[in-house]
Amino acid sequence: MSDKPQNDTGQRLQTLSAIFAPRSVAVVGASDTVSKIGGIPVDFMKRFGYAGRVLPVNPKQTTVQGLPAFPSLQAIGEPVDLAIFAIPASLSRAALEDAVAAGVKGVVMFTSGFAETGDDGAGQQAELTAIARRGGVRLLGPNCLGFMNVGEQLYATFSPAPASGQVRHGPIGLVSQSGAFGAYAYALARERGIGLSHWITTGNEADIDFADCVEWLAHDPQTRVIMGYMEGCRNGPRLRQALAAAQAARKPVVIVKVGRTEAGAKAAASHTAALAGNDAVYDAVFREYGVHRAKDITEFFGVAAAAAIGGLPRDASLGLFTVSGGVGVLMADEASQAGLDLRPMPDTAQATIREWVPFAAPTNPVDITGQVTNDATLIERTARLMLDQGGYASWIGFLAAAGTAERFWPVLESLVTNLRRDYPDKLLALSTLLTPARRQALEALGCMVFSEPTEAVRTVSALARLAQRLDAPVVPADEPAPPLSLPARVLNEPESLAALAQAGLRVVPHALVHSADEAVAAAGHLGSAVVLKIVSADILHKSDAGGVVLNLQGAEAVRDGYARLMAAVHQNVPQARLDGVLVAPMVDRHGTECLLGVQRDPVFGPMVMFGLGGVFVETLHDVVLRPAPVGLDQAHEMIRATKAHALLAGARGREPADLDLLAQQIVALSRFAVACGDTLESVDINPFMALPASRGGGCAVDAVVIGRAPDEQEPA
Amino acid sequence: MSDKPQNDTGQRLQTLSAIFAPRSVAVVGASDTVSKIGGIPVDFMKRFGYAGRVLPVNPKQTTVQGLPAFPSLQAIGEPVDLAIFAIPASLSRAALEDAVAAGVKGVVMFTSGFAETGDDGAGQQAELTAIARRGGVRLLGPNCLGFMNVGEQLYATFSPAPASGQVRHGPIGLVSQSGAFGAYAYALARERGIGLSHWITTGNEADIDFADCVEWLAHDPQTRVIMGYMEGCRNGPRLRQALAAAQAARKPVVIVKVGRTEAGAKAAASHTAALAGNDAVYDAVFREYGVHRAKDITEFFGVAAAAAIGGLPRDASLGLFTVSGGVGVLMADEASQAGLDLRPMPDTAQATIREWVPFAAPTNPVDITGQVTNDATLIERTARLMLDQGGYASWIGFLAAAGTAERFWPVLESLVTNLRRDYPDKLLALSTLLTPARRQALEALGCMVFSEPTEAVRTVSALARLAQRLDAPVVPADEPAPPLSLPARVLNEPESLAALAQAGLRVVPHALVHSADEAVAAAGHLGSAVVLKIVSADILHKSDAGGVVLNLQGAEAVRDGYARLMAAVHQNVPQARLDGVLVAPMVDRHGTECLLGVQRDPVFGPMVMFGLGGVFVETLHDVVLRPAPVGLDQAHEMIRATKAHALLAGARGREPADLDLLAQQIVALSRFAVACGDTLESVDINPFMALPASRGGGCAVDAVVIGRAPDEQEPA
Repeated sequence: MSDKPQNDTGQRLQTLSAIFAPRSVAVVGASDTVSKIGGIPVDFMKRFGYAGRVLPVNPKQTTVQGLPAFPSLQAIGEPVDLAIFAIPASLSRAALEDAVAAGVKGVVMFTSGFAETGDDGAGQQAELTAIARRGGVRLLGPNCLGFMNVGEQLYATFSPAPASGQVRHGPIGLVSQSGAFGAYAYALARERGIGLSHWITTGNEADIDFADCVEWLAHDPQTRVIMGYMEGCRNGPRLRQALAAAQAARKPVVIVKVGRTEAGAKAAASHTAALAGNDAVYDAVFREYGVHRAKDITEFFGVAAAAAIGGLPRDASLGLFTVSGGVGVLMADEASQAGLDLRPMPDTAQATIREWVPFAAPTNPVDITGQVTNDATLIERTARLMLDQGGYASWIGFLAAAGTAERFWPVLESLVTNLRRDYPDKLLALSTLLTPARRQALEALGCMVFSEPTEAVRTVSALARLAQRLDAPVVPADEPAPPLSLPARVLNEPESLAALAQAGLRVVPHALVHSADEAVAAAGHLGSAVVLKIVSADILHKSDAGGVVLNLQGAEAVRDGYARLMAAVHQNVPQARLDGVLVAPMVDRHGTECLLGVQRDPVFGPMVMFGLGGVFVETLHDVVLRPAPVGLDQAHEMIRATKAHALLAGARGREPADLDLLAQQIVALSRFAVACGDTLESVDINPFMALPASRGGGCAVDAVVIGRAPDEQEPA
Repeated sequence: MSDKPQNDTGQRLQTLSAIFAPRSVAVVGASDTVSKIGGIPVDFMKRFGYAGRVLPVNPKQTTVQGLPAFPSLQAIGEPVDLAIFAIPASLSRAALEDAVAAGVKGVVMFTSGFAETGDDGAGQQAELTAIARRGGVRLLGPNCLGFMNVGEQLYATFSPAPASGQVRHGPIGLVSQSGAFGAYAYALARERGIGLSHWITTGNEADIDFADCVEWLAHDPQTRVIMGYMEGCRNGPRLRQALAAAQAARKPVVIVKVGRTEAGAKAAASHTAALAGNDAVYDAVFREYGVHRAKDITEFFGVAAAAAIGGLPRDASLGLFTVSGGVGVLMADEASQAGLDLRPMPDTAQATIREWVPFAAPTNPVDITGQVTNDATLIERTARLMLDQGGYASWIGFLAAAGTAERFWPVLESLVTNLRRDYPDKLLALSTLLTPARRQALEALGCMVFSEPTEAVRTVSALARLAQRLDAPVVPADEPAPPLSLPARVLNEPESLAALAQAGLRVVPHALVHSADEAVAAAGHLGSAVVLKIVSADILHKSDAGGVVLNLQGAEAVRDGYARLMAAVHQNVPQARLDGVLVAPMVDRHGTECLLGVQRDPVFGPMVMFGLGGVFVETLHDVVLRPAPVGLDQAHEMIRATKAHALLAGARGREPADLDLLAQQIVALSRFAVACGDTLESVDINPFMALPASRGGGCAVDAVVIGRAPDEQEPA
């Protein structure tokens, strides 16, 4: 372990180390037939040279594949770190009890027929989990393909994939919730020459889950980059903890999470929930911890392999070198779209390049032209000039098909060797056509190689973003607010506004009244044109019920408005219980309507939302989501992340809204959400009217807070 | 030629055929040294077996590489279709005159040192072009890598790329404006086993340009798919003609056009021009002719190769087959985002699949699970069921790493053979890991193969869009409007409104007045609250100058408003010449502000623009662009293509705007633009107030038309 983790975490990691890097492995259900589930692990470990003890367990045999076999785990008579269960579901319970009695630290269960088959199976699985927990045994699976420790040639898997060729040993740890995908990814990694430290599939996750594996890899000194394939997550806080551990260890995490377009499918009752589908929550969480979410398998392997080969760049500055002007433009297009910094070469350096090649384009991209075919030294000379004087953190050289020319190979090899030696902190990439063997040779020297120049640019951009996020981990709010407990119901408008005001949010001045006289008095007190709004838990859509009367100026108008409102409500919703009428000033027309909200995600807890109101949210879905707590910098970043944020910053000749105040409101809302914990279902402030500082900066005009009964605590 | 093209086009194509498929080739500057520019083409044609006559021209030798050499083209004494110039720039003029005298049909000039070097070179190039035009010789280049006719082993190139291995012969014609990119693309095509019919680089395009080559390939019976690499275009109408020819021939065109992010760089003076950068014009033109614009080189080759292998699907319906549930979701995510139709399997077919595999997911994706490893016949059985009963136009099967298992190859081979035979009109794709040779074997059978499942989905989506566009070529406006000629100046508001009204657009009722009395009378006539606006060519920003007074109701208010307006204008812009005051009714508040515009693109002529007004255009750049003329269906499609179009269709409880009227306005504006030809610089209708049909459907509220002096006609 590279760091010294504390207490719980330390205990957890130590147990997992006994599983993922065991000194001894028992195979329960071990078989002489090397193609059988119980034969494959024994065969692979023998054949590929696992250095620890392999202990077959099979009550019917005295030897398995030439190794002495034991009738049970207890019969082994020495400590067993890991037991592999290659047995039918019906025998699992007895074997697990045997494992507990034998003091086994961890069990990998290949066995299927549990939760994936329905309620009966889920019940049996829960029983196994309970036995394991009571007995202090950690459990991987059931219904999984197991795992491999590539460096130690440990094959706790029945995937036949290694038989067709073993993956290279390397610094990437791969975790997959799907066995089928895991086996496919193993083959892909092998074909592409990508080196793995561990390959883990988690199956039904009765005990050890995806997050456990990520956290363990975050502390594993053999692993520098973590790849994850996810289908879902049941314990959000654990996943966040694991991702935070990886972030703290500065290990890039690249994840494929399926289900992007399910967004909105789980739309909950509240308005804001419908705007931010479930999948957007994963995006927000991944973003929080600097995870790169890959959109497809190519990107999944591409970014992870690049991070393993080249490391992360210092910043987003990029020097582009090309032998074709057009491809230079293509790369510049991509770089500019990807937000990379294509700062120009200094004038003196440009002059030097022009001396070398009069028709070169010396700015950035530097197009040295086909002249390289006459003078191959131009490549390294130019690269050095760019790295020295341009000061780029990353450098990409496009060399067209030069890599296919035999005579050019020594040039490439010495180029990469020399640049790597003299610029160890720079990220280097080449785009040219090479045989797989030569590509891997350059990669082994620490230079990324791409056949596609724009993929090189996209990958550098992904690494620069990863670096930025890993260098700037999220700062949580200074100190958590004292816990609050909300009632398990919809708070009416004055209750909602009061709760938010108490949490430090700016809310519109208002009064709750119960008669026309009180309304007139309150309006007089507010001293401006007012709006009257009915307050009733039974009326969801106030306007539709005639429960809103706008723009009343003067006592007579207020009195008359009150009468009209009550008449309309009595007529339209005669059954509704009424809690009074809210009196508030008319909204400042100079403002920009915003939406501030919180929605409790069943997996990840409170998510804070910000968007520009009305059409932007409803038609353009221009809403930004972050898991609470949200710090002030993040709040500003949330505002800037909306497409329409220019409206707040003073577009179309408006006075800019008070963005500092707005960001503070988001932070206060986030603190409120954290304080309420799981007694909060949602907050919907719509609109929050954002105003220029000269007009007070704005306030919440309408709000609904919904409380909920807290979950029963699961026994730890 | 597959079609009989008419007149001009026919003549043009015939001459190009003499170049691209010549019966005899002279090489001027032919050399014995096979690595020299003048040696390479002779060597390749001899070595690879060009069947036509190769005629070296070299006044200093009697033979070149064993072939009899001639002192000049005229000395050959027999007709020469094509002459390759591998000579210095200084000898080019004499050689071209020799070619004219010898009756050569076409010349390929490798020679550099012309327009690419500056004004002098450009002047010399113009002289060569003039000589060629006068002499009836077509010219490819100068400063190009030449071309290859792959099927005939004709090498009119000095690219050494074929020496490292020849590209396969196939149905894809590739045109590149860049030699460096062309050579790289040749190597890529060779490495990926992609078959080419022709490979052409166009260099400086002194005569034959990119469009000429595309048009010729559109008529070439050997070519079924066209790939193009573009850096720019000088003759927009010719490019449109060429793309239309490809569309008419139902040949997919895939183009990489560099310079995506230059958008906005060439922003012209007019407001609307700034919104639609130059590059967006290419997007609009490509879209018009169903061109697939590839975002990178992978997609460039991927889509073109897929179209060549699999053809185009009947529609966007797609059946997904998977052996991994997670990858099924990954593919479904991609398909749903790409707009493909994942219709479910019929119930009876689902029941059949459940009979075969109880835990299968039978809907679509069909996840047949790892069960295939026990029963490989499940793949073909399920595929047939899906194609028969699901009726999908395309089918993608994800088989994970199965392709790497030796025993699985016969299964794959017979699967593809059988499905191709029995479902010849369906598009088939497999995603699995295969050796290059096996991948090519399946591709030769007509099945696309991908290692990346989501790339398979994206490619099917690209092919479905290509098919849709090729099947529904753009219908131009029924009959062109009679030509109009605008004055070369900014038309003032009443002039602009009058011109548009005459062209059939709905404009706001208005009157031009020159006194308060006239204003009062006009307002009385309009019968509602009115706005007064100053009319002056010298005042660009009317509101800033105090030249707009809103919401005047009644004679007194109008009289007073007129006085205020004139006073403000006299004070703020005392020098301005005034043309009067425009009186118009106040705008209906129930409308949605739209932007309708035309901007003359220097390359492609009038581009029609539509967007929702105000913040949508200015902050979100939500503008759609199409080259004129625009038909009614296209106009509707333009409206739907805006992100905010839901606002017009009745979002947020509004009454929907009259979309038919709005589309008619776009068509009328487009006809106006075409009628004005190059006397029109721009039209900016901002806003066009779109209203529900019940409120009259809307009208142009403010408009500026800018005329221009027409270009001098170039001599044809």
